[in-house]
Amino acid sequence: PLGINMEMDNSYLQDRQKIIDKEYLTRIGGNLVLTHAEDKVNQILMAAKDREIKDSFYNGVPFPPNLHFFEAKPAIENSTVFQLIKKMPKGGALHLHDCSMTDLRWLVKTATYMDNCYMCYDQNKKINFHFFRSPPQQPGCPWHPVSFYRNQTANVSVFDDMLYQSMSLEVTDPQTSYPTLDAVWRKFEEVLMRANGLINYAPVFAAYYYQALKEFMEDNVQYIEVRALLPEVYDLDGKIYTPVQVMEIYRNTTVKFVQDNPTFTGAKVIKTNLRFKTPSIIKSDIIASAEMMSQFPDHFAGYDLVGQEDPGKPLLYYIDALLYPSSHQPPIYLPYFFHAGETDWEGTSTDYNLIDALLLNTTRIGHGYALPKHSEAMMMVQKQKVAIEVNPISNQVLKLVDDLRNHPAAILFEQGFPVVISADDPAVWGAKGLSYDFYEAFMGLAGRDADLKILKQLAMNSLTYSAMKTQEKAQALDMWNTKWQIFINSTLEE
Amino acid sequence: PLGINMEMDNSYLQDRQKIIDKEYLTRIGGNLVLTHAEDKVNQILMAAKDREIKDSFYNGVPFPPNLHFFEAKPAIENSTVFQLIKKMPKGGALHLHDCSMTDLRWLVKTATYMDNCYMCYDQNKKINFHFFRSPPQQPGCPWHPVSFYRNQTANVSVFDDMLYQSMSLEVTDPQTSYPTLDAVWRKFEEVLMRANGLINYAPVFAAYYYQALKEFMEDNVQYIEVRALLPEVYDLDGKIYTPVQVMEIYRNTTVKFVQDNPTFTGAKVIKTNLRFKTPSIIKSDIIASAEMMSQFPDHFAGYDLVGQEDPGKPLLYYIDALLYPSSHQPPIYLPYFFHAGETDWEGTSTDYNLIDALLLNTTRIGHGYALPKHSEAMMMVQKQKVAIEVNPISNQVLKLVDDLRNHPAAILFEQGFPVVISADDPAVWGAKGLSYDFYEAFMGLAGRDADLKILKQLAMNSLTYSAMKTQEKAQALDMWNTKWQIFINSTLEE
Ligand SMILES: [Zn+2]
Ligand SMILES: [Zn+2]
Repeated sequence: PLGINMEMDNSYLQDRQKIIDKEYLTRIGGNLVLTHAEDKVNQILMAAKDREIKDSFYNGVPFPPNLHFFEAKPAIENSTVFQLIKKMPKGGALHLHDCSMTDLRWLVKTATYMDNCYMCYDQNKKINFHFFRSPPQQPGCPWHPVSFYRNQTANVSVFDDMLYQSMSLEVTDPQTSYPTLDAVWRKFEEVLMRANGLINYAPVFAAYYYQALKEFMEDNVQYIEVRALLPEVYDLDGKIYTPVQVMEIYRNTTVKFVQDNPTFTGAKVIKTNLRFKTPSIIKSDIIASAEMMSQFPDHFAGYDLVGQEDPGKPLLYYIDALLYPSSHQPPIYLPYFFHAGETDWEGTSTDYNLIDALLLNTTRIGHGYALPKHSEAMMMVQKQKVAIEVNPISNQVLKLVDDLRNHPAAILFEQGFPVVISADDPAVWGAKGLSYDFYEAFMGLAGRDADLKILKQLAMNSLTYSAMKTQEKAQALDMWNTKWQIFINSTLEE
Repeated sequence: PLGINMEMDNSYLQDRQKIIDKEYLTRIGGNLVLTHAEDKVNQILMAAKDREIKDSFYNGVPFPPNLHFFEAKPAIENSTVFQLIKKMPKGGALHLHDCSMTDLRWLVKTATYMDNCYMCYDQNKKINFHFFRSPPQQPGCPWHPVSFYRNQTANVSVFDDMLYQSMSLEVTDPQTSYPTLDAVWRKFEEVLMRANGLINYAPVFAAYYYQALKEFMEDNVQYIEVRALLPEVYDLDGKIYTPVQVMEIYRNTTVKFVQDNPTFTGAKVIKTNLRFKTPSIIKSDIIASAEMMSQFPDHFAGYDLVGQEDPGKPLLYYIDALLYPSSHQPPIYLPYFFHAGETDWEGTSTDYNLIDALLLNTTRIGHGYALPKHSEAMMMVQKQKVAIEVNPISNQVLKLVDDLRNHPAAILFEQGFPVVISADDPAVWGAKGLSYDFYEAFMGLAGRDADLKILKQLAMNSLTYSAMKTQEKAQALDMWNTKWQIFINSTLEE
């Protein structure tokens, strides 16, 4: 909206442009050079982005990154930018959790329709799920086949929706339903635990994971890394799988999926445990994990601690266990991928997890939400090339930030930090794949003038900063390049 | 919550502490050394801060910086930290606006009880105020003396509360009442305009300003700088004051107040105009302002543009006018104090106001909310020692950010930027003086371990980065030192 006929001082305008260009160069993707074809796609992308931003900036249309994801989702799905992002090969999803990667509608349609699937209502009218050959007596929550309830209902799709809702955080009034961070975390843990009754049944477990790979592939993601508890998977005979056996399911399913889909690169598992366990449990777990590193050289990537970080034990609490591999003679190889700094609380134990994660030589940092408040840690991250796994929708739904334009990773974007975009627990908030988080990152965390370069760089980062070995990375990047060319060409053909 | 009996690696702990210490040093106030007495006060302060943070971090007590100010206010007033901050000499308030500095209860009690004070209800049942010897016919909004309505009411204090509410943004349900940033800005402009009907009456105008000085002094602020429109002040004879005459009111009232209160340092005016005016109006205003610089050498400080920044014209739109003083031969002296980057919109015209403000050699930046998203601008701010005027409550109430722990100035705090804390328009949201904003800055923007040093540095910054001349600054700092010693000693005596 510049006035015309101004006698503009040319040298002023030149100085100004120099600063703007200099800032642009330091951003993620700022020094990429686009090909002629990419440049054309960029024009299509930026025309759409500009239109969508202008609608909000000038015309008051609600801006999706300023809305809660539950309210923003329909507008996102209508967005041309989102449609382009969906088609774009996005590389890998490096921060996902085992029991919240797959569309819950698939879980309802599949698991709850299987034989031997039971449910019960406890005293609080909350649903539990479990598979049994024949269920035990449980007076507080008497088991019946899901089909028993489904057959009684007048409307099966209403019933199935209800099952879906029972495992989802989605509500129409998120601000009222989840007044505090603690409240949404309690509900989050509750819905995950409920879904686990279905997921941890061995036949479901493998199918659930296979379906996750399928959904990410359909969203043009070619590789994933899964934070996995390796939980107590069970079958009808009362067999409880050991962590190694669960790891075998992951490996075998991954191998099978890649056989079925040769353009998919693969997947690796990062073993996790809860940051509420005793130090001695964590120590044994670390030793067992180090063994799995050699047992599953192509599919096991390292170790992490999970669970709500503020009430959880800080990394320092486990320092003995966590230093064990590196202080062992000879050192034991176990890369770390710590969740750290997933907090609004500066100067607390959670916040200082960032320092410990870096001192413990973490390969990447999960969230790192508080990182920009730490100047030394920022320098260490740059120097040690530790990628930050940014999960925009997760941070919003789990109430670290409302307007995603206030997400601190905007500063990491601006300063060209090693960042990857991921989805954390997409199923629980009704997202799918990476595209929703890429959209929020591109429209909310990055500025109006951030373009195809940042998207391309973020996609490449997700392979470069993955846990893949050098050779695997090279192959993955080749595959990504092929997909990228197809994306560029097909976008121009439309 | 550390476990005990851990075999802790001492060198690990030392490395860790080194990083934490290094980060602490770079923060605002990080390299101050406290006296023995200050250290004791610091212990009292930090015991209170720790208690209040633990209440929220561990026990779920709502954390005031995480609440909307309207909901947080009672808890803030109950806070021991707040009580200490109130008693603390805070130096100067450098970012205030002429018509929203003084408690609206005072305005109601004073102005609306004066002779010749009229009000009317327009078609939308909205109140207008004006003083008249005898009011004109105005069918769309028929004037009656305020006393006429007040005499009809059953309960005078309910009536006076209603008058107060009509000029305030305060509501019990801010999220519902103000769903968008534009919505709260429309209401903001409406209530300011309503109050102006009272404030711009000459006898009220001087008294209102005198009362502002009094309230800031009572809040242990010794100096203020006022962004002033120098509006059309009027009297009963139909006289409209010129900007120079309004400036004379400010000068004379300041001189009077300092005579009455010799420990108060004084005040300066920054002339403002609206960022919706034509470039030629701004150019004449700049020329007139430069003249006032020499007419009022001790009380006129410079120039700024105000109004909602996103829909407003960018600085670049006025570049001809704004470059006029520096490009004139010989250069004309007119310091700038630009509002810039008061936005969540990265990469827009508002956002780039930051670059223009710096290129135009601004003395300070009002808000600079978007600054951490600009790496070059950050460097320029450090190099040119441009102070950033941070107004936490304003940014929250006017909907740039919800949880003040997400305020981007946290990063400026962390990196030791030249920051001052101010209050912007405290009257409109029911704050008073600087203490509420200092509390939010100390508890919300600064970390758990930020202590008396940051408060002391922020207070000193507010004099160092003021528009005072070198000699005035020295005197102001001497006075502040005296007040600070009294604060330290009296706190220890309690
Ligand atoms: Zn996670
Ligand atoms: Zn202001």
